[in-house]
Amino acid sequence: MSLTDDQLADIEASRASTAATRRATVPALEELLYQALPVLDHGFVRVIDYMGDDAAIVQAARVSYGRGTKRVSEDAGLIRYLMRHRHSTPFEMCEIKYHVKLPIFVARQWIRHRTANVNEYSARYSILDREFYIPAPEHLAAQSASNRQGRGAVLTGQEAADVLDLLRADAARTHDNYVAMLNEGPDGQPIDPGRQGLARELARMNLTLNTYTQWYWKIDLHNLLHFLSLRADAHAQYEIRAYAAPMLETVKAWVPAAYAAFRDYRLGAVTFSAPMLAVLKRLLAGEAVEQKDSGLSKREWAEMMAALGRAA
Amino acid sequence: MSLTDDQLADIEASRASTAATRRATVPALEELLYQALPVLDHGFVRVIDYMGDDAAIVQAARVSYGRGTKRVSEDAGLIRYLMRHRHSTPFEMCEIKYHVKLPIFVARQWIRHRTANVNEYSARYSILDREFYIPAPEHLAAQSASNRQGRGAVLTGQEAADVLDLLRADAARTHDNYVAMLNEGPDGQPIDPGRQGLARELARMNLTLNTYTQWYWKIDLHNLLHFLSLRADAHAQYEIRAYAAPMLETVKAWVPAAYAAFRDYRLGAVTFSAPMLAVLKRLLAGEAVEQKDSGLSKREWAEMMAALGRAA
Amino acid sequence: MSLTDDQLADIEASRASTAATRRATVPALEELLYQALPVLDHGFVRVIDYMGDDAAIVQAARVSYGRGTKRVSEDAGLIRYLMRHRHSTPFEMCEIKYHVKLPIFVARQWIRHRTANVNEYSARYSILDREFYIPAPEHLAAQSASNRQGRGAVLTGQEAADVLDLLRADAARTHDNYVAMLNEGPDGQPIDPGRQGLARELARMNLTLNTYTQWYWKIDLHNLLHFLSLRADAHAQYEIRAYAAPMLETVKAWVPAAYAAFRDYRLGAVTFSAPMLAVLKRLLAGEAVEQKDSGLSKREWAEMMAALGRAA
Amino acid sequence: MSLTDDQLADIEASRASTAATRRATVPALEELLYQALPVLDHGFVRVIDYMGDDAAIVQAARVSYGRGTKRVSEDAGLIRYLMRHRHSTPFEMCEIKYHVKLPIFVARQWIRHRTANVNEYSARYSILDREFYIPAPEHLAAQSASNRQGRGAVLTGQEAADVLDLLRADAARTHDNYVAMLNEGPDGQPIDPGRQGLARELARMNLTLNTYTQWYWKIDLHNLLHFLSLRADAHAQYEIRAYAAPMLETVKAWVPAAYAAFRDYRLGAVTFSAPMLAVLKRLLAGEAVEQKDSGLSKREWAEMMAALGRAA
Repeated sequence: MSLTDDQLADIEASRASTAATRRATVPALEELLYQALPVLDHGFVRVIDYMGDDAAIVQAARVSYGRGTKRVSEDAGLIRYLMRHRHSTPFEMCEIKYHVKLPIFVARQWIRHRTANVNEYSARYSILDREFYIPAPEHLAAQSASNRQGRGAVLTGQEAADVLDLLRADAARTHDNYVAMLNEGPDGQPIDPGRQGLARELARMNLTLNTYTQWYWKIDLHNLLHFLSLRADAHAQYEIRAYAAPMLETVKAWVPAAYAAFRDYRLGAVTFSAPMLAVLKRLLAGEAVEQKDSGLSKREWAEMMAALGRAA
Repeated sequence: MSLTDDQLADIEASRASTAATRRATVPALEELLYQALPVLDHGFVRVIDYMGDDAAIVQAARVSYGRGTKRVSEDAGLIRYLMRHRHSTPFEMCEIKYHVKLPIFVARQWIRHRTANVNEYSARYSILDREFYIPAPEHLAAQSASNRQGRGAVLTGQEAADVLDLLRADAARTHDNYVAMLNEGPDGQPIDPGRQGLARELARMNLTLNTYTQWYWKIDLHNLLHFLSLRADAHAQYEIRAYAAPMLETVKAWVPAAYAAFRDYRLGAVTFSAPMLAVLKRLLAGEAVEQKDSGLSKREWAEMMAALGRAA
Repeated sequence: MSLTDDQLADIEASRASTAATRRATVPALEELLYQALPVLDHGFVRVIDYMGDDAAIVQAARVSYGRGTKRVSEDAGLIRYLMRHRHSTPFEMCEIKYHVKLPIFVARQWIRHRTANVNEYSARYSILDREFYIPAPEHLAAQSASNRQGRGAVLTGQEAADVLDLLRADAARTHDNYVAMLNEGPDGQPIDPGRQGLARELARMNLTLNTYTQWYWKIDLHNLLHFLSLRADAHAQYEIRAYAAPMLETVKAWVPAAYAAFRDYRLGAVTFSAPMLAVLKRLLAGEAVEQKDSGLSKREWAEMMAALGRAA
Repeated sequence: MSLTDDQLADIEASRASTAATRRATVPALEELLYQALPVLDHGFVRVIDYMGDDAAIVQAARVSYGRGTKRVSEDAGLIRYLMRHRHSTPFEMCEIKYHVKLPIFVARQWIRHRTANVNEYSARYSILDREFYIPAPEHLAAQSASNRQGRGAVLTGQEAADVLDLLRADAARTHDNYVAMLNEGPDGQPIDPGRQGLARELARMNLTLNTYTQWYWKIDLHNLLHFLSLRADAHAQYEIRAYAAPMLETVKAWVPAAYAAFRDYRLGAVTFSAPMLAVLKRLLAGEAVEQKDSGLSKREWAEMMAALGRAA
């Protein structure tokens, strides 16, 4: 992560300024507010604002006049009930706003979640910095042989070195040429006064997909948890999971009861299909079921055994 | 408006409690927070929470690191530009949450706006109070003769008295019978111990559409302004306009620059169609245009003349 | 269900008219098109239009140039995979449009699903017919003693008779008074020429919540399946489940492979939380687990045992 | 546009196959169905499916039992009324599905419209073709001096030649290196058997933003018209306007009455703010108003004069 001195000063100034409010306030999240939590080589996640807390979930579920409830344990029980039975609307009553810096190819996955508000830094209007994502050696994975959208072993030796060289050289060269086509120096003046400079909205097309962009992203708690359940999942690409991890920490600081319920009833939960449930009942009755007489495909059988911690 | 002592105490307790926050805070809206702003005979609107302020709109539009800007006048100028050119996403970065008490027939119009989060008081789970909307005499309007979904003159004399009697009597009787079918007294005990009581989810079907319900309703500023532009409009039914009015006041307290831009570029703006624009150019050129040679229908002509403050 | 002769003629005329199309077409759903499938005492569901079929799901998942695939069994396998792994976007590529007639209190639950397009018959503009939902005797349930939003045993004897009398009488009287306040006869002429008639948008507030309304409702397959998974569920109120049942039949006719996958992976599936999964592993290892040493609440234990078909 | 023989054969097969349907059918759109309408150098738009027609808008607005109406002129009048008064829900009752091939930087703008269904070709799963957008010489514009997100004059001479060379060379080299890192030949076999090949989900980050992608995109007519009103606008980037143009033609073929209303009341319409309206009234009263005494900023004054076709 590489913040300029001006950016750091802006962040510190935001953190230094406080005011009195009648709103629901969460000290543990206030502590994190505005701080840049580093992700990948140049990215970050910052919490910019939030609305509501665990009690606000309860308050909305009860449509109550006051700020919520007497006993924290009662609230936690109701929150667990709401999570278990997929009552989504009370969780929509909490809202959070992030500032995220991320590679464009990650942004393209992320934006597929349509239930958020987004303001992205505009490369039609401004010039993108010379910052690209280059995987750390331990994340430079080969294509999986068994899963067309998965990763295999980590690349090593000359192949790894060559890949890193190509990624670095191509990103650097395309950005250099981007600046050359723009013909605009850091001072805003033409580099070559005899040239006009290509329009920003066109020049950006020369950048590679690992170039960093940034946006403000605002979402309610229900949809954030849905996003995190997909993006913190082992099937998600590592580069987006890397963002989900610190975001889960911010949720834990913000709404600890909702987070605990989410961990138990979503992150750690397993759904068995009707055919799997039939197999489960046979297993519990002591029957020795095998894949070939289970009614499940090999893939489903493997998924089920993995969920139960048994050898397939 | 009729709040119980317990409800008033809850509201006062919420207002009395403050905490320090690093978030954007708006003193003028803090002043209104939690207060019940009366609407119609028993309804209200209360602001329960909010996120962001005028500077947050600017901050998101610029994807900036700090809390916004140096000069208020510069921010207001950018906000006016964004509003004029229908840049909606920066306004989505502010969020507000209301507690609203309203007649069911108003709630049915209101809920058609799908871009909000809602938690409604459940009549499957709880028992609705004996409160109905009865129009004030000056709002007891006749059917419009010219507009199938509009109002004409105010009813007077015996007809007005009869209507009010019927509305009151039917609402009272259906609610009495609702309670009788539920067979549940205020203490939660059976009224008639020999009876089981009809399920709440069924008994509610006996209530009339002027019965009051209530909900928590949360929405971003862009969609709130869209809601208000439709519901504060003269074509909207009076009973929903009555809610839009105090909500506009809360917007004015919350984001004064966005409110001023909204007033100029939406509430007070007029859209002229391509054929109307052609007429306008002829008028400006000094031509005496009449409806029959305008290319506009009588209705469009009347709408255009009304917008220009000219006799049709 | 009570359709007028004109309505039946309109339906028959729609069914009689066919045209050639290059679009994906599903004969089994064409067979049902426009027909009113009866629900409750006066309601119905009609399929008005549809877009796509099972092959369209596959086509979108593959972003292919042609109309889909060679082998039906391969398509079904991919559809099962997409359903199991919650890939929702290919299912969004199919769309269906219904015309539904339903009691207002059911419409109020239904409209909470925000991801559909709706046009409701307007009681601001038109006059609602004298049709109310009155439960059949076998659906006249008492309030559940254990579940605040559930039903208990069916009411019988004098209590049942009294409830039905009250429901019928109140609905009839409030509708009669609605018409009296409107002062408009079936011919559109004033009933009493000396009166103006209350505005329609006001008079409607006197109707009870079991009055029938109707709407056009259009939704994509992914969101329809989500709606049906909630509304066909045993926890849903009977009166909305009554609509989910024939709608499931229309889905089965329309996209049989998606329907079969939905039945196996959603309707018949069970989700076990992390604590439940821990219990399951102990049970499979042969341990005799009881609720008090399970780490589950009594309620969760009961839910888990019910899912496994074991005595709690 | 460059379709393979297989792709052309798939398209022709789709066009050749017809079936009988009871659904609303539009011969003029059937004529266009599945055809690739060329856009930019390698892109296209294809209509894949549609639901509804002009009569379906009317049918939904009236919640009618039949297929619509007797007289086309009456329908058109109602559609104009609905468009003028921004009744959006009847237009939501029509749906259309496109297959679009477009450069990634265009896709990034396009996806900001959240009210559509999308399935994009996955570069996690598959390998992207070697196709890039290179602007035609007449679209190679300089940066605008006055508008930070606009274009100025067309580049010429050596600067134009250099820009085109850089764009071509960088896109070609990064794609060549993408394939080299993947280490996968057209036959699916390793190019160098001694290497593993980088995971697809990683290798794609080396591609430039002018690489072509493709997706299925489905949207209702109301939201499509909103999209087109923004993207066919003169302020939109040329490369996305190039897609809006043939899409407008498909709308015209599909729902001619809605298209005509859209053209008059949206595309060709102008909105005057409250301060502009005040100026307009003074002008119509014969007053000679100038910018400095107009109450408008220079920019707003210029916008207003441009709309009225007067010298600023």
